[in-house]
Amino acid sequence: MQTMKATVFVEPGRIELREKPIPEVGPLDALVRVTTTTICGTDVHILKGEYPVASGLTIGHEPVGVIERLGSAVQGYEEGRRVIAGAITPSGWSNACLCGYCSQDGAGTNHGWKPLGGWRFGNTIDGCQAEYVLVPDAMTNLAPVPDALSDEQVLMCPDIMSTGFSGAERAKIRIGDVVAVFAQGPIGLCATAGAKLSGASVVIGVDRLAGRLVIANRLGADHVIDASQVDPVDEILRLTGGRGVDVAIEALGTQQTFEAALRVLRPGGTLSSLGVYSTDLKIPLDAFAAGLGDHQIVTTLCPGGKERMRRLMSVIESGRVDLAAMVTHRYKLDDIAAAYDLFGHQRDGVLKVAITP
Amino acid sequence: MQTMKATVFVEPGRIELREKPIPEVGPLDALVRVTTTTICGTDVHILKGEYPVASGLTIGHEPVGVIERLGSAVQGYEEGRRVIAGAITPSGWSNACLCGYCSQDGAGTNHGWKPLGGWRFGNTIDGCQAEYVLVPDAMTNLAPVPDALSDEQVLMCPDIMSTGFSGAERAKIRIGDVVAVFAQGPIGLCATAGAKLSGASVVIGVDRLAGRLVIANRLGADHVIDASQVDPVDEILRLTGGRGVDVAIEALGTQQTFEAALRVLRPGGTLSSLGVYSTDLKIPLDAFAAGLGDHQIVTTLCPGGKERMRRLMSVIESGRVDLAAMVTHRYKLDDIAAAYDLFGHQRDGVLKVAITP
Amino acid sequence: MQTMKATVFVEPGRIELREKPIPEVGPLDALVRVTTTTICGTDVHILKGEYPVASGLTIGHEPVGVIERLGSAVQGYEEGRRVIAGAITPSGWSNACLCGYCSQDGAGTNHGWKPLGGWRFGNTIDGCQAEYVLVPDAMTNLAPVPDALSDEQVLMCPDIMSTGFSGAERAKIRIGDVVAVFAQGPIGLCATAGAKLSGASVVIGVDRLAGRLVIANRLGADHVIDASQVDPVDEILRLTGGRGVDVAIEALGTQQTFEAALRVLRPGGTLSSLGVYSTDLKIPLDAFAAGLGDHQIVTTLCPGGKERMRRLMSVIESGRVDLAAMVTHRYKLDDIAAAYDLFGHQRDGVLKVAITP
Amino acid sequence: MQTMKATVFVEPGRIELREKPIPEVGPLDALVRVTTTTICGTDVHILKGEYPVASGLTIGHEPVGVIERLGSAVQGYEEGRRVIAGAITPSGWSNACLCGYCSQDGAGTNHGWKPLGGWRFGNTIDGCQAEYVLVPDAMTNLAPVPDALSDEQVLMCPDIMSTGFSGAERAKIRIGDVVAVFAQGPIGLCATAGAKLSGASVVIGVDRLAGRLVIANRLGADHVIDASQVDPVDEILRLTGGRGVDVAIEALGTQQTFEAALRVLRPGGTLSSLGVYSTDLKIPLDAFAAGLGDHQIVTTLCPGGKERMRRLMSVIESGRVDLAAMVTHRYKLDDIAAAYDLFGHQRDGVLKVAITP
Repeated sequence: MQTMKATVFVEPGRIELREKPIPEVGPLDALVRVTTTTICGTDVHILKGEYPVASGLTIGHEPVGVIERLGSAVQGYEEGRRVIAGAITPSGWSNACLCGYCSQDGAGTNHGWKPLGGWRFGNTIDGCQAEYVLVPDAMTNLAPVPDALSDEQVLMCPDIMSTGFSGAERAKIRIGDVVAVFAQGPIGLCATAGAKLSGASVVIGVDRLAGRLVIANRLGADHVIDASQVDPVDEILRLTGGRGVDVAIEALGTQQTFEAALRVLRPGGTLSSLGVYSTDLKIPLDAFAAGLGDHQIVTTLCPGGKERMRRLMSVIESGRVDLAAMVTHRYKLDDIAAAYDLFGHQRDGVLKVAITP
Repeated sequence: MQTMKATVFVEPGRIELREKPIPEVGPLDALVRVTTTTICGTDVHILKGEYPVASGLTIGHEPVGVIERLGSAVQGYEEGRRVIAGAITPSGWSNACLCGYCSQDGAGTNHGWKPLGGWRFGNTIDGCQAEYVLVPDAMTNLAPVPDALSDEQVLMCPDIMSTGFSGAERAKIRIGDVVAVFAQGPIGLCATAGAKLSGASVVIGVDRLAGRLVIANRLGADHVIDASQVDPVDEILRLTGGRGVDVAIEALGTQQTFEAALRVLRPGGTLSSLGVYSTDLKIPLDAFAAGLGDHQIVTTLCPGGKERMRRLMSVIESGRVDLAAMVTHRYKLDDIAAAYDLFGHQRDGVLKVAITP
Repeated sequence: MQTMKATVFVEPGRIELREKPIPEVGPLDALVRVTTTTICGTDVHILKGEYPVASGLTIGHEPVGVIERLGSAVQGYEEGRRVIAGAITPSGWSNACLCGYCSQDGAGTNHGWKPLGGWRFGNTIDGCQAEYVLVPDAMTNLAPVPDALSDEQVLMCPDIMSTGFSGAERAKIRIGDVVAVFAQGPIGLCATAGAKLSGASVVIGVDRLAGRLVIANRLGADHVIDASQVDPVDEILRLTGGRGVDVAIEALGTQQTFEAALRVLRPGGTLSSLGVYSTDLKIPLDAFAAGLGDHQIVTTLCPGGKERMRRLMSVIESGRVDLAAMVTHRYKLDDIAAAYDLFGHQRDGVLKVAITP
Repeated sequence: MQTMKATVFVEPGRIELREKPIPEVGPLDALVRVTTTTICGTDVHILKGEYPVASGLTIGHEPVGVIERLGSAVQGYEEGRRVIAGAITPSGWSNACLCGYCSQDGAGTNHGWKPLGGWRFGNTIDGCQAEYVLVPDAMTNLAPVPDALSDEQVLMCPDIMSTGFSGAERAKIRIGDVVAVFAQGPIGLCATAGAKLSGASVVIGVDRLAGRLVIANRLGADHVIDASQVDPVDEILRLTGGRGVDVAIEALGTQQTFEAALRVLRPGGTLSSLGVYSTDLKIPLDAFAAGLGDHQIVTTLCPGGKERMRRLMSVIESGRVDLAAMVTHRYKLDDIAAAYDLFGHQRDGVLKVAITP
């Protein structure tokens, strides 16, 4: 039995690189040799024990790699092809998928829906911070990478870009909209880029770190607000002449940003929520116009599947956005502990780290 | 100067029938002689002082009547025509209206949006619990009543039916959806009827009053749940085999119903909120899947304008629903104090009262 | 090798019942023992050679049956379960499917789209007018039939009901719309039922056969027009006071009905086209307002997949529509030649025939 | 009675600058002193007698100017304010407007809809190639111009930009779409810009004039195709690996471009038609997949109204697109005959001419 190195959750506070067997390939699976991957904020939650996963699970959900072996029932791919798979790996055949909600994939349940069911890598099955990863429902999930694109250029597609862009898409941004994006971490930055790409005429980026606001400007923000210096609600209402924004995107997952997003919405506006919250949320009566403001609140879990990946890579290939600049640090898989240490403590202006096995 | 009788808010707890001048007709207005009107739950809030309006204001926002006089710039109508106007009377020319959000009409503001700005009758201008009512922006708001329909048959169109149906419409109910409607007061009953009319294959009505559940059944509920006897969340999850509903409509305006509506939603489902809340709302973390459930929360203020009224009357005329049965009691305008007393205390199984000047 | 009876296309004008091997079951397939099926207008086109298929192919695409054997990779089903599959059997994993266009499934092509690619039964693979049918991508396509429903009650779901309803759904019918449906054959009748179910306040059914207009009335038409007696365009404009309809559904596939559907549309209206055309179409300049009428023309191929089937069966189960009445004649599979003869010549008021192996 | 110079249609082939009375201002009107206007392709059709208007009518429908006088019932504006109005001047209060179809405004008709009814300037009322223009329903139509923008910067908003962008908007372009735009005249160029602004990852511009393709590149086309050199259908299918485009925009109004647009569509794709056709159109059976390709054809008449103008100007102000470069020639109103001569014969690489009274 061959083995490989894999980053394993052991217990809260402890993630280790271990030897594990290279997985068996089932009929619908593909084994992918990982060439580049990265660490997500969610992985840090897992490390801290804030999001529980099974002890011994390999974590990581953003794979770029090469097809090593294909399951017996997989058609339309060849070994050796460079591919990515989304952080969310839907089955394609659950009722949720067939209804357009792939991230809530309930394949195998009796009614076909399961909250977050499409998120499997590093959550319910072994993930990709390893030398190899087994991709389930391979025909639904393997997306060939265009030759012209490097690993790092597509490294944001599986999660950060798909999530951030979906914040703009689900809000149905229209040409000429004014959009505020609360928090400019990796997902917020992608939401900023996605809002601009969707035709917003004014994009306002909010964060408390000056360094991130610089990048926000580069990725499409017309105005940036340093929330450590001024009140962003006041500032946004001032910028919009008291009208408020058409769309507010929440990309952090706190009561404070959620509430601020609601307070800057014009009547009839849309709050598009991407953050992972850790407490109950409060909707203030006044900001909600007592329920009579024609407001909409939409939430989105990262869309996955190969068609989604294909689209996102086409955006990269067209040069519409350049997200490779978000890779600020690089580590070998052997040094992933150091990468977690840097990323977990958000040191040295880190945005995303590239991990290469 | 001619006078008329009008129901006037004096101070919290006190509404009186008074003599007031019949209003002057401006160039864009129409004076309508009221033939039938009704009392809304909102009027009771006003009476109690829970929703503040100016002392001396005529209240009421659901007029059926006859055109008495037309403003000098009004074209396309003739005096003597029987008409209704919506509870919400948009200008037609504000930026909000031109963008499709007529209820948030900001005509006259510097940016064209105003929360609840379309609600003028009995809120910012004199309403229709009177012998006459002045309809602003008459060409936008006067909808001729088909001869075949009686006053009582169209009495629900201006508010109750428009609001209730919008709960189903804004949720984008699809053929085959399962829908739960929380509370079966007049608006909830109309939401139940609207959900069925939109193609829901299962409509579940929830209330604490057995009498209302009987009417819910009549108007389209396939299942009814008496929330005074069983927990509606458990019961709905049981009815749906654990899957939950595609759409939950909140039609009361309380934390309890809002939260229950969220708890019965399947991932990717829509909570359509119609209630007027009086406190901050809490979104429980678990019911919200930590923000990752692809849920949508949409709120709606009663749509108005003559095209909306025309459509709703066409539904009545086609016999698709019969809402006249919601008129349980009838009063003369002179006896409106008694009508408020009955309706405000929800005595005698009252749903809606018809008031005739 | 076991054999079964199957209805096979031999050459134009000749369809025969033959013995064929019972198919082998691949890892993703399911073998279904057919208990009831039916003949579609498309099958008659195949018989006549107007739609070419391979000689020797088993035809038929509307199966009701019982799972006989499951492929090795199929999970979530058990043998013996009563099921249906749609006429269209998408893979679930092609790019077209993942983008929401399952009927244009391009599984196996290099870009993931193929016109009509989702239609496989009796087109590119053996169909279901046989004792057994092999269902591809079984997990995507097998929909369990609720116990309360008979075979005949769900017999319209795979094609006729799915297609007819999609005519109403794709037109985005809203509450209060006026809808005309051109031709009241099986699909047009289902479109009529679907339009009413979607909230149309006036549904107008058009056909040249008085018998079909009677059924149209029963299934939801408020007005029926006998096109053999009056000009339907004139009549519809008269009925709508010159305004025209919000939505016109074409359910026959001829220039005449397509053009009439366009001529009765109000500006901004939607022509929803379901018919299978056999000639180029002409769009008359005047009816099209020279391209400036804000019109929309949408076409739809029958949606398939198990979630679609589940939804349609839930509509039947709720009693919203009763399509079993469309089964006017019954035949044994052994007598399918007679069934084709009756159905192909539209004798004896036939709408749909039930075939039982 | 004061007079002004106005460009008047006399008879086919003859447009003259004449003295006409400065119009009286009705209660809902505004008199605008025109500071800049332009000539549209439609005006050339009028000149040639291909689109009939009344003899003596002032033509032109793209006004930039200053409010000279306000009607007695107009509120919210002051004289001296610089404004634009759309080519389409909806009433705001017709049923069509209240339903979201402002361009088909039927104010004053008995049912509230009228094909092209929103187009009044230079069609049913005097237009703006004059020293003054009377803007009807001023509160619905006057849009203040931000101080930072010059007349020429907003000159495309009333028609060209609104129309071109609507081609992208109505097609519901999504991030990552591939879009082809047939013809790169002023409207096609704006459609190209609009497609890119909506998130298309590949925009393909087609024309027969090399000069226009250069500008297409500048405004957002990733690929350009010279249809005088190669077959654009072949070329687009080659560029897309045989898949076709998600959206094809027709911006010329000929059978040839309409048909080509249909032929390059992927199954499930959308043909967004902007052209003004002058003959019946043919839909080829094969390109239409016999009606089974899930295609959509949508047509759009230029959207108008002040909110539309506000949005478009916000796009200009944000720097997202620079359309001022489309003004290739400048004339005084006194020399408008020469401007018509140049523009009508498309000499000297003309795209748009600025006319200043």
